[in-house]
Amino acid sequence: MSPVETLTRLRVRYAETDAMGIVHHSQYAIWFEAGRSDLFRERGIAYGECEERGVYFPVTELAVRFIQPARYDEEITVASRVTAIQSRGITLQYEVHNEAGAVLATGHTRHICVNAVREPRSLPDWLLRQLTEDS
Amino acid sequence: MSPVETLTRLRVRYAETDAMGIVHHSQYAIWFEAGRSDLFRERGIAYGECEERGVYFPVTELAVRFIQPARYDEEITVASRVTAIQSRGITLQYEVHNEAGAVLATGHTRHICVNAVREPRSLPDWLLRQLTEDS
Amino acid sequence: MSPVETLTRLRVRYAETDAMGIVHHSQYAIWFEAGRSDLFRERGIAYGECEERGVYFPVTELAVRFIQPARYDEEITVASRVTAIQSRGITLQYEVHNEAGAVLATGHTRHICVNAVREPRSLPDWLLRQLTEDS
Amino acid sequence: MSPVETLTRLRVRYAETDAMGIVHHSQYAIWFEAGRSDLFRERGIAYGECEERGVYFPVTELAVRFIQPARYDEEITVASRVTAIQSRGITLQYEVHNEAGAVLATGHTRHICVNAVREPRSLPDWLLRQLTEDS
Repeated sequence: MSPVETLTRLRVRYAETDAMGIVHHSQYAIWFEAGRSDLFRERGIAYGECEERGVYFPVTELAVRFIQPARYDEEITVASRVTAIQSRGITLQYEVHNEAGAVLATGHTRHICVNAVREPRSLPDWLLRQLTEDS
Repeated sequence: MSPVETLTRLRVRYAETDAMGIVHHSQYAIWFEAGRSDLFRERGIAYGECEERGVYFPVTELAVRFIQPARYDEEITVASRVTAIQSRGITLQYEVHNEAGAVLATGHTRHICVNAVREPRSLPDWLLRQLTEDS
Repeated sequence: MSPVETLTRLRVRYAETDAMGIVHHSQYAIWFEAGRSDLFRERGIAYGECEERGVYFPVTELAVRFIQPARYDEEITVASRVTAIQSRGITLQYEVHNEAGAVLATGHTRHICVNAVREPRSLPDWLLRQLTEDS
Repeated sequence: MSPVETLTRLRVRYAETDAMGIVHHSQYAIWFEAGRSDLFRERGIAYGECEERGVYFPVTELAVRFIQPARYDEEITVASRVTAIQSRGITLQYEVHNEAGAVLATGHTRHICVNAVREPRSLPDWLLRQLTEDS
C-alpha cells in the first residue's frame, strides 16, 4: 500500500516504566496512537477535525510483538504506515526503534470508520484522497 | 463538614508502578477520583448521571503529600470525605492506607461546578441534598 | 488446557476513558494484567514473590479484539485462563464482559520466563505444579 | 533561586484525554516530570545516571492548579524551574502553556533525596554544582 512512513520521535517518560525497570507493555498502544496521529497530520488530516466532521476511527484490533525493552529517557522512534484501506476501515503498521536502530516492538491496529453515534460509515472522499495520494 | 467517610478498596496494579519499584505519584490522583466516584455513588449520585443532566465537576486544584510508597499487589484503601460545599463547588479530602493501616498519602481536590459548555453554575438542589444529608 | 477461569471484577475509572467517551483501548492490556495477577494469586502464586525468587514473565505478544466499548462507572469482568504452558513460557486468554454479559473485548498475551537479568529460563517446578493442578 | 527555565514541548496525546473531552488532571504530574527530566538533562544531569549512582528523588509533595483545559493534539509547553535546594531535597515549579500562550496549569513538586534503599541522604556535591551554576 503506502511505502511512505511517518516517523515520530518520543522520549521515554519515567511514568511509562514499571517495576521491572522497563516501559510497561500497555504503553506501546499509546505510542502507536501518537504515530498514527502524526501520520494523519503529515497527510493534511487533523484527527480532531475528523471528529468535528463526524468521522471517528475506533480501534477494532491491536496486536503488538515485544522484541526488546525500552527504558527511561531513551529516545525512541515510531515508524507508522497505512497498510490497507477498505471502504469502511483502515489498517496501520508500526515499528518502534531505539537510538541504536534496534527494533523494540512491531504491531498493527485496525480501525473501523464510524459516525458520532458509532454507526459504521464509509471513509469520506476527502479523507481517502489524502490517505492515498503520493506524498 | 461531613464526618462520614467513604472507603474504597483497590489492589495495586503492576502498570501503576514505575522503575523505582513503587506506585508512580501521578496514580494517586486516579485513586482519589475512584474514591470520589464511590462517595458520590454511596450518596445516591451516579457521577455519569450528573454529566447527563449537565452537571460537571472539573478539578481546579489537586494536592498530594506522599508519606510512604505503595507497592505492586498491595491492597490499599482510599478514605474520601467532602470537607466543603460552596454554592458553585466542592472540596474533598483523601487518605490512602495500606493493609497494615499505615498512611501512604493524603490530599485534597477542589472542584468547580460547570455546565456542558464549561460555564460555572450552582450545584443543583437535588445534588446538594444528597451531598449534605446524614447518611 | 485449563478449563478453569479466574474472574476479576473492576469498575471503570474516569481516568480510563478518552475524548471519544469510551475506555481507551490501551487500558485493556492493564485489565488483562489485573486478571493475570488474580489468576496467579488464586493458584497460590503471588507474582511479586515470583520476582523475588528471580522468575519474571515479560509480555512478548499482546493481541486484543475490541467488540463493544466500555464506559465510565460500568462494572466489568475479566475472565482469564491459561491456554498454553511451554517449558519457557506461558500463554493466557482473556474475555472482558460488561454487567449485561456482553463481550466487550477478547485477547491473549504470551510471556517468556526470564531471570533477573532477562535471560530465558525454564519455569520452575513449583510454579508449573501450581499452574497445572486442577483447582 | 534559579531564574533559568527549561522549556519542554509536548503534543497532547489522545490517550491523555478523558470523557470530558479534555486532558485528565492526573496527566499534569506526568508532564511536570517530563519537564523536570529535561531540566536535569539541560544541566548535564541524566536522571537515569543519578539512580545508577544511588541518588533518587521521590516526590514528597505535588500541587497543581488547573486554570484552563488542554485538548487533544494541542502543542503545549511546560516551563520548569528549580525554586529551592535544601541539603536533602529540592523544589521545582512548573507552568503549562498552550500555543496561544495561555496558562493552563501551574504547580510544584517537592522531592527528598534518598539512596537505593530509600534512606534520606544529602544531595551529592556534583549534583549541587550542576543544579546551582548559572547556565
